[in-house]
Amino acid sequence: MFEHTICAISTALQDGAISIIRISGEHAIPITNKIFTKDLSDVPSHTIHYGNILDGAGKPVDEVLVSVFRAPKTYTREDIVEINCHGGVFITRKVLSIVLSQGAVLAKPGEFTQRAFYHGRIDLSQAEAVQDMIDASNDTAASLAIQGIRGSVKKLLQPLIDELLDIIAQIEVNIDYPEYEDIEQLTTQELLPKTNDWLSKIDQILKRVQTGQLLKKGINTVIIGRPNVGKSSLLNALLEEDKAIVTDIAGTTRDIVEGQIHIGSVQLNLIDTAGIRKASDKIEQIGIEKSQQMLQKAQLVLLVLDGSSPLTKEDQILLEQTKDKRRLILFNKEDMQHQDKEGIWISAKNHQIQPLLDALENMYKQDLLKEEPVLSNERQIGLLNQAKQDMLRAKEAMEMMMEPDLVEIDIQAAHNHLKEILGEVHREDLLDTLFSKFCLGK
Amino acid sequence: MFEHTICAISTALQDGAISIIRISGEHAIPITNKIFTKDLSDVPSHTIHYGNILDGAGKPVDEVLVSVFRAPKTYTREDIVEINCHGGVFITRKVLSIVLSQGAVLAKPGEFTQRAFYHGRIDLSQAEAVQDMIDASNDTAASLAIQGIRGSVKKLLQPLIDELLDIIAQIEVNIDYPEYEDIEQLTTQELLPKTNDWLSKIDQILKRVQTGQLLKKGINTVIIGRPNVGKSSLLNALLEEDKAIVTDIAGTTRDIVEGQIHIGSVQLNLIDTAGIRKASDKIEQIGIEKSQQMLQKAQLVLLVLDGSSPLTKEDQILLEQTKDKRRLILFNKEDMQHQDKEGIWISAKNHQIQPLLDALENMYKQDLLKEEPVLSNERQIGLLNQAKQDMLRAKEAMEMMMEPDLVEIDIQAAHNHLKEILGEVHREDLLDTLFSKFCLGK
Repeated sequence: MFEHTICAISTALQDGAISIIRISGEHAIPITNKIFTKDLSDVPSHTIHYGNILDGAGKPVDEVLVSVFRAPKTYTREDIVEINCHGGVFITRKVLSIVLSQGAVLAKPGEFTQRAFYHGRIDLSQAEAVQDMIDASNDTAASLAIQGIRGSVKKLLQPLIDELLDIIAQIEVNIDYPEYEDIEQLTTQELLPKTNDWLSKIDQILKRVQTGQLLKKGINTVIIGRPNVGKSSLLNALLEEDKAIVTDIAGTTRDIVEGQIHIGSVQLNLIDTAGIRKASDKIEQIGIEKSQQMLQKAQLVLLVLDGSSPLTKEDQILLEQTKDKRRLILFNKEDMQHQDKEGIWISAKNHQIQPLLDALENMYKQDLLKEEPVLSNERQIGLLNQAKQDMLRAKEAMEMMMEPDLVEIDIQAAHNHLKEILGEVHREDLLDTLFSKFCLGK
Repeated sequence: MFEHTICAISTALQDGAISIIRISGEHAIPITNKIFTKDLSDVPSHTIHYGNILDGAGKPVDEVLVSVFRAPKTYTREDIVEINCHGGVFITRKVLSIVLSQGAVLAKPGEFTQRAFYHGRIDLSQAEAVQDMIDASNDTAASLAIQGIRGSVKKLLQPLIDELLDIIAQIEVNIDYPEYEDIEQLTTQELLPKTNDWLSKIDQILKRVQTGQLLKKGINTVIIGRPNVGKSSLLNALLEEDKAIVTDIAGTTRDIVEGQIHIGSVQLNLIDTAGIRKASDKIEQIGIEKSQQMLQKAQLVLLVLDGSSPLTKEDQILLEQTKDKRRLILFNKEDMQHQDKEGIWISAKNHQIQPLLDALENMYKQDLLKEEPVLSNERQIGLLNQAKQDMLRAKEAMEMMMEPDLVEIDIQAAHNHLKEILGEVHREDLLDTLFSKFCLGK
């Protein structure tokens, strides 16, 4: 189907131990044969071969391992060769340039996955899940992505697509053979309940989608409280609890950690932590106006109160401001021994915040436990919403006893919008935009 | 030999299409079996297997390809498993953490290569060449590294080691059986020519080493000239000629390119290019003092003169200052048509700098064409110099007709220093330091 054999560096382009240069297409193996010390023409699929990459003059350039994957059981369903070379940026580019010099073409971002999609190995939602996995920054996102890769969206939507097809078929039978039955009656009596049933299923999915997106992207969280109440200490205590750092590999995580904290499986995206640090002892900087701005963006509020003294007027204002928000009210105190009220008592300064961690985990446990498939991005959600709107129009038309073929148009549109989620119908230019957001080499 | 099974992320830890998690040791395959959907117990070496990585609860975490390499034909001579997972930082760390949870231990930097060395698959100079390849930033460095990986240092040194052993053997025979010959006579008459011959070979190597190091590390180059003579335009023209950018992959090269320019196979490390840009129209900033500082660091001077007007006093000073340096004198002119003197005429502003590029290539052609193996780093060069000093002492002792066993001590020392280059004798703590400079996962 594709004329060119493509190639790209598939590992992150920074010095590392190993880099992968991936080649896909009809000429993947012949191209490699021209630059590799071993003839791969007859080697079996899924085997690895040791040798050297040679330059135009036949001089060894790098010692490599070459993996051969023969179509159709490959990522793209084309022949694939992967060259594992030394992971320096210069030598990696050098090997790539040698592959390019033999007639391979530099792959566009996402082009390998795009070919997998065009060749029917995966549907569009699975393709999207591949990039979702690479972008995943927490357990929920990774878990949604692997479900997506394994085809969860299709499993979710296929019954709904089939139901629509069923409705369409029924209408068409009645249009073609009007003598058999009273069409209007069929429309309202038989199709309306089916339509309502379908719509309620869509609503359930859309509801789940919200929680899924929340947990996937992390919960925008703001820590508020009057000055000196312990916001900065709380931030430090939370940073210390961060579960994202599984090993102490060089400092790539700590840079972003002020923005993202992983507590168990919950990711908190902390808003304005710099503000917390700066404002902690300057009354004028944490004015009501500022906290309101922060609150607007927040999906969760951690309101810190002084557990050792009565509420001040400022506390009252903050309590009032956040009363309609999802929030946790924390009583902070130097010494956590004597807790005179029901509530979440912590000692931020002493990093005793277990009650807060438990409360957080509890708050989202329900959602975390559910492992039902959901849609994974705005494109999919948008199309599902469009399908819903189509069907609402169809429903209205049915209720108004309009012509069956007018009703059918809307149901057909809903059907198409759902199929578009899976890429079964698609617009070429939209697809190009979609894949262009992928990373190189995938 | 090694108790632990080690693992590490072997690709650069940044979001990319694919990451590799490498596991090496006795338990590499059993550990993988516990977390992978396919049983690898009986699969052949050098084969690749598709499946999912499972977490502690048996839930799929990522879709991966797993490569199996069975000892002894592997990088470390131990069983090796490589998991190719999606290349996001989070999912890569997650898979690593699952491998760690099954009893693998996080590898230290360079530990895979260290094991390859301890198991005798490679000598120490080959191990060093592995990291040299990753660090290589130009063709010469990469070419030296691949020679090194293929054992060039051993090929170079083994004859010299053997000659020393031969000399030592001869001395020992004469010590053990003094009745056979006059020992002193043997020492001076037979051993002295051999020693001199050996020393001259060492000197040849040390000479080649210098050029090798220069081309490998790049040539520290300074562009000088009085204000407004076209230094900044020349820099821009050189940047445009840079051959390092084989493809237009996202801006990782351009950041460093002001420091390093690759002209053909020659790498120029430009000194103070920021100064060139800034100072181009401010006379006071390019004072004599400053240019002297720059000259001290330079291995090559590009002196730019105005080709359209007579030399100024400032030009004369610069010509005088650089007369003992390796230099290229460039006549720069708006219009290159009329060249009234012999020399390198360029038009920097119009990016007509071919005569300069030719001159550069010619200047280093001799060195570039030589592809004889050389030593590759300060450790090796230092040890070779020590061996030379040992032999100079031995020579002195021979000439002074000292006791053969005293002579032997120095030759023995030289012998040991050469073997230390290959790691055949080594100090454990020095080795640890050496490998700690490797990258993780190699």
